[in-house]
Amino acid sequence: MRVLSGIQPTGRPHWGNFFGAIRQYIDLQEDNDGFYFIADLHALTTVRDADALRQNTLDAALDLLALGLDPRNATLFIQSHVPEVSELTWLLMTVAPMGLLERCHAYKEKKAKGMTADAGLFTYPVLMAADILAYDSEVVPVGQDQVQHIEVCRDLAGSFNHEFGETFVLPNAKTLDHGAKVPGTDGQKMSKSYDNTLPLFGNIKQIRKQIMRITTDSRPMEDPKEPEEDHLFQLFRLFAADDEIEAMAEKYRQGGFGYGEVKKAVAEVSETYFAEARTRREDLEANLDYVHHTLRDGAKRAREVAATVLHRAQTACGLR
Amino acid sequence: MRVLSGIQPTGRPHWGNFFGAIRQYIDLQEDNDGFYFIADLHALTTVRDADALRQNTLDAALDLLALGLDPRNATLFIQSHVPEVSELTWLLMTVAPMGLLERCHAYKEKKAKGMTADAGLFTYPVLMAADILAYDSEVVPVGQDQVQHIEVCRDLAGSFNHEFGETFVLPNAKTLDHGAKVPGTDGQKMSKSYDNTLPLFGNIKQIRKQIMRITTDSRPMEDPKEPEEDHLFQLFRLFAADDEIEAMAEKYRQGGFGYGEVKKAVAEVSETYFAEARTRREDLEANLDYVHHTLRDGAKRAREVAATVLHRAQTACGLR
Repeated sequence: MRVLSGIQPTGRPHWGNFFGAIRQYIDLQEDNDGFYFIADLHALTTVRDADALRQNTLDAALDLLALGLDPRNATLFIQSHVPEVSELTWLLMTVAPMGLLERCHAYKEKKAKGMTADAGLFTYPVLMAADILAYDSEVVPVGQDQVQHIEVCRDLAGSFNHEFGETFVLPNAKTLDHGAKVPGTDGQKMSKSYDNTLPLFGNIKQIRKQIMRITTDSRPMEDPKEPEEDHLFQLFRLFAADDEIEAMAEKYRQGGFGYGEVKKAVAEVSETYFAEARTRREDLEANLDYVHHTLRDGAKRAREVAATVLHRAQTACGLR
Repeated sequence: MRVLSGIQPTGRPHWGNFFGAIRQYIDLQEDNDGFYFIADLHALTTVRDADALRQNTLDAALDLLALGLDPRNATLFIQSHVPEVSELTWLLMTVAPMGLLERCHAYKEKKAKGMTADAGLFTYPVLMAADILAYDSEVVPVGQDQVQHIEVCRDLAGSFNHEFGETFVLPNAKTLDHGAKVPGTDGQKMSKSYDNTLPLFGNIKQIRKQIMRITTDSRPMEDPKEPEEDHLFQLFRLFAADDEIEAMAEKYRQGGFGYGEVKKAVAEVSETYFAEARTRREDLEANLDYVHHTLRDGAKRAREVAATVLHRAQTACGLR
């Protein structure tokens, strides 16, 4: 099945991003025809710094390739390298009722906060629909907050098909698994907005320092503790093997250990877990020609599909 | 100077369109670098019939070429043949405040009438801005009702330049001359919305019949009449030579003539006036390969300019 994922190049990924989304996206490349794009056009609605956008876009590509996205298996490309998506956006704009866009969360929330919105934020779901429809995507894995946008996409595709005849494939949302708890350095859910994130890549000593500073409770060392309720344990279990997890759980239940010890263990298992990706990322950074070539090649493959879909849409509505 | 004109392919042109706009656009090709496009993407916001849009688009090209637009002198192309315009539209969308678009007439009026608007109508001025900016247009001849859209274009270009550095050329509106009075068959201003139009092209007998049915007043034939106040005379003067106009005015002032006689004269001078264009249009219709070649060639020239401007914009904001 054609699976589509877009990744916003708006900052460095953290453990929460990885377990909550990125890993799941990448896993889908195995049994599907995966299309992965870096959404630089979407990022434009928030990033106003050209150098930052360029760097973030490249970083996102490096991250995905380092984390196992395999260009022999899947198609990786940059959104703005496929002009057909922008062309399709306008066609969909003409079948997008204002009311539908006014009801979309992101816009509504910004407006409710009294912030000035621009047309980019307002029509964001139309661009997203074009991204999805341009590749005849069948499945779009998304977080719960993006399910509405898939509904909008289906609405627009349905309206266009109704108006001009069968043209677009209606996609289905696949809600990501939010089973794994990924607490941040303060014990709350890890999230950029709480400023409690631990990055996937970056200076390893720095990350270790951040881990050592994770907040803990003040119960005496000797006390036995319930592992499942402790956020350090929750972080440990993300990375450790089953027997290591069991051993650590046993330690909690018996008591007589220090949180510093667990932090060190978290640092070690996480470093081991990301070691291969980290090395791969360094190799890629030293070989940017290969990365650019991969992105160009991905864009070429993506454009072939998008051109066919665009032509179908243009013919349906009388532009060709 | 680079002059840009867009023509909506939404129906057959009438005498009012010709004297109020088309002729003036075409005249500008003489001393300028004229870019003329047929706005099929804009038409999509109202035309929902693919065959009609295809036919209207071709007709608009035939009309312009027949009326003297010279592809050796000017660049004629179809809007949707330049993907760069759609790409630019998104970039401008991200600097378009909602308030600016909400204040635009076309959208406001439709909303005030309680009609459901779609995002195509709402963001229409952004697409128009992209059309203008894509070609570094310096002058845009427009009717009074479109001056606001040029202001919006300047606003968006200014915001983008301010945010990302000098990128776009700010265009100036050139308001069309509305001096020539072109009354319709009922004596009111000729306009599609009054259903009182006389077409430029079409069945000549039919047009003659329409002319013979133009409403007149019931003053006796013998009465002397003031020519300037009569709509038949106003139509006559559009087409006739100075000496013919003077002779006809004299006839009015003396009285003793019938309106039927004037109608016949109007039919004759208008037929003569459009005879060359009519023949040229028939030739073009018999040689559609040439027309399609001209449009392809125009699109190629337009894309060369648009690609440069787009690249400038993409680099400025970090997409390249």
